[in-house]
Amino acid sequence: MDLYEEAKRIEIQLSSLAKFSAEGAGVTRLPFTKEALAAVEFLAEKMEQAGLVVKQDASGAVYGFYQGISDEKIVIGSHYDSVKCGGAYDGIAGVVCGIEIAQLLRQEKTKMPYSLEIVGFNDEEGVRFGDGFFSSKAALGEWTKEDLQTKTDADGIRIDEAMKKYGLKPNEIAAAAWKLENVKCFMEIHIEQGPVLEAAGCELGIVDGIVGMRRYRITVEGQADHAGTTPMLMRHDALAAAAKVINEIETIGRSYKDAVATAGFCEVFPNTVNTVPQRVTFSLDLRSRREKDIGNMEQNIMDFLQQVTENNGTSYDVQQTLSVKPVSMDTALQKTLQESCSKCGYSFMKLSSGAGHDALPIGRAVPTAMVFVPSQGGRSHCPEEYTDPQNLAKAVHVVLDTIKKINLEE
Amino acid sequence: MDLYEEAKRIEIQLSSLAKFSAEGAGVTRLPFTKEALAAVEFLAEKMEQAGLVVKQDASGAVYGFYQGISDEKIVIGSHYDSVKCGGAYDGIAGVVCGIEIAQLLRQEKTKMPYSLEIVGFNDEEGVRFGDGFFSSKAALGEWTKEDLQTKTDADGIRIDEAMKKYGLKPNEIAAAAWKLENVKCFMEIHIEQGPVLEAAGCELGIVDGIVGMRRYRITVEGQADHAGTTPMLMRHDALAAAAKVINEIETIGRSYKDAVATAGFCEVFPNTVNTVPQRVTFSLDLRSRREKDIGNMEQNIMDFLQQVTENNGTSYDVQQTLSVKPVSMDTALQKTLQESCSKCGYSFMKLSSGAGHDALPIGRAVPTAMVFVPSQGGRSHCPEEYTDPQNLAKAVHVVLDTIKKINLEE
Repeated sequence: MDLYEEAKRIEIQLSSLAKFSAEGAGVTRLPFTKEALAAVEFLAEKMEQAGLVVKQDASGAVYGFYQGISDEKIVIGSHYDSVKCGGAYDGIAGVVCGIEIAQLLRQEKTKMPYSLEIVGFNDEEGVRFGDGFFSSKAALGEWTKEDLQTKTDADGIRIDEAMKKYGLKPNEIAAAAWKLENVKCFMEIHIEQGPVLEAAGCELGIVDGIVGMRRYRITVEGQADHAGTTPMLMRHDALAAAAKVINEIETIGRSYKDAVATAGFCEVFPNTVNTVPQRVTFSLDLRSRREKDIGNMEQNIMDFLQQVTENNGTSYDVQQTLSVKPVSMDTALQKTLQESCSKCGYSFMKLSSGAGHDALPIGRAVPTAMVFVPSQGGRSHCPEEYTDPQNLAKAVHVVLDTIKKINLEE
Repeated sequence: MDLYEEAKRIEIQLSSLAKFSAEGAGVTRLPFTKEALAAVEFLAEKMEQAGLVVKQDASGAVYGFYQGISDEKIVIGSHYDSVKCGGAYDGIAGVVCGIEIAQLLRQEKTKMPYSLEIVGFNDEEGVRFGDGFFSSKAALGEWTKEDLQTKTDADGIRIDEAMKKYGLKPNEIAAAAWKLENVKCFMEIHIEQGPVLEAAGCELGIVDGIVGMRRYRITVEGQADHAGTTPMLMRHDALAAAAKVINEIETIGRSYKDAVATAGFCEVFPNTVNTVPQRVTFSLDLRSRREKDIGNMEQNIMDFLQQVTENNGTSYDVQQTLSVKPVSMDTALQKTLQESCSKCGYSFMKLSSGAGHDALPIGRAVPTAMVFVPSQGGRSHCPEEYTDPQNLAKAVHVVLDTIKKINLEE
């Protein structure tokens, strides 16, 4: 193995793949588009060159299989779709790293007890149809034909229509489900998409779990009044109330360890300089590895919301828009990955994933691990997204070492 | 005089005038429209019936003159335009009350030392061309031909074009200016547009002055980051900073007597649930009768803004968009109006106007007074706007009594 050679191959493949993009800044590779198809064809070719047996499932995922002594397999991969005007690393880097692992393993010509399967999942981001985790949920048999007929994109195109046009058979979506008894474990290499590893000066991160998440749409309803003629104490100012709550969201987010609380969206009505705001709608996004902390943060914020609106004579409404439980990464796999990091001599730390990944749904069904690779400046979902290919190659070395250890265990 | 009769006439005229409106809820009577023309023709007819000599000036204002012994005149009136989907009282009630005063005065057949002129000003609201006070500023000679050629409405129509189409001569705008030496004083009856008189249980309000006003457009610039992967302490959240400032705006507004401070507009970028806000732009509107207090509020808020943005690593920019100095109503006129209220037996209080009126520009040039009439629920600029015609008739009686007192003084 040669870190420089692996890094160079990864870099070349990622820059080739970045060209499979719709117009605009950065990379835009939405599901069931010609850009997606070009990426899949490229990945399939690289998988074949690595000696893998390639297939595509009904969800649009591309798989490359490397037979071991047993049919039971270790699955490694990530997704090949991107957000709009995103970067060249999010998701796709994990697929390319997976192929590199298979390539290196085949070069060694050792017959492994377990089979290996590299996967490029489709539509993890959910940009086009809203949900995301499309292939990884299909791998767990979580989509029905009805789902595919009801969900549409912004142009009103249904998922099943988009699939058909792309050459897939929506009726066969159930066949995309994994035989779980055949899956030993799942591993995903992914860029961190945050600033923690870079700030800590670590080359790699071993993910201990993926945060749970709850989202809410909060509306405060006051009264529109003339901003000149309505004395301060006679107002029911929806924005004054919302501002207090948005401030409290930050305070509460800071008071829980390893938690985040964000108000990212805020809309004011009627939104004119000389009218006391009548209505404010804002979002709340709560995340933590500890479900209990999410519940407590929610309670703190809702109590505060009630108190503030009562104080200034406004009313409120809360709609929960998302609820996802945290998932833990497999403890034994984390331990093995740490040993591999130490053996390879790469600096690492444990951290939680604050974002969802294909490992989130998969992690509920099979032993799962994730390796994070530092994001420059913590940036992602933007054209400036960058991850050092040398660090990606280090992740390849570590996961390869861990695979070998798993095979040795038996 | 008969309060019930006066109130009935006022009510009938206001409900007739409310029909001169563009389509939609409430009253929409924008300047230089067929609705405005119909209202002017109606007012001119009523002025003639009241024995006034009617003329229209180049700004579209309608005047009705009642000769006294001297050419020096007391001018009474308000504006006949409305906001979009506004009410049937704002502005127009003061014109109708003025005509009613002239009517009552003529019935008494007393020759007065001073002449009386009733005015219906055009475009006080500024909805169409942005500035407002069109006729009242024209009365002060404050418009140039160039202004009329540069300012446009939302459809790109210039003021001078709109005037010509309406039948006015923009070249003659200078001729609309009053001979100030001929104006004894100006008085405006207007609905309060706020909740103070109703809450205090007063039938009338004597305005002691019109607030000064400063407006700002404040932008806080932070950094867009992933709301899941960016720890709370590594964020530069523009909305978290802006929320603190918006909260402080309310606190500071409450801490100054008879002042108001409002954030009515707020816009977030990129405004998505899972992104730490990069940029927030919000408005600040400060008003007080005391120029010094406006300056101090501004200083307090700007100091706080600097401190908050420094604390969370964001930057800020402030653009001042408006600055109007407060104006005092004439003390002698206020005193006479109070005496008239007491004589008529109507409950009243002194208060400041938190909104601009034609009396604002005029008040800088000639002795000026305003009488406020309670707004139901403090509402205005909406179809629900309502003012009891009996209270309007009370304002008529009070101003009529004050005119007589002014005439007796000489």
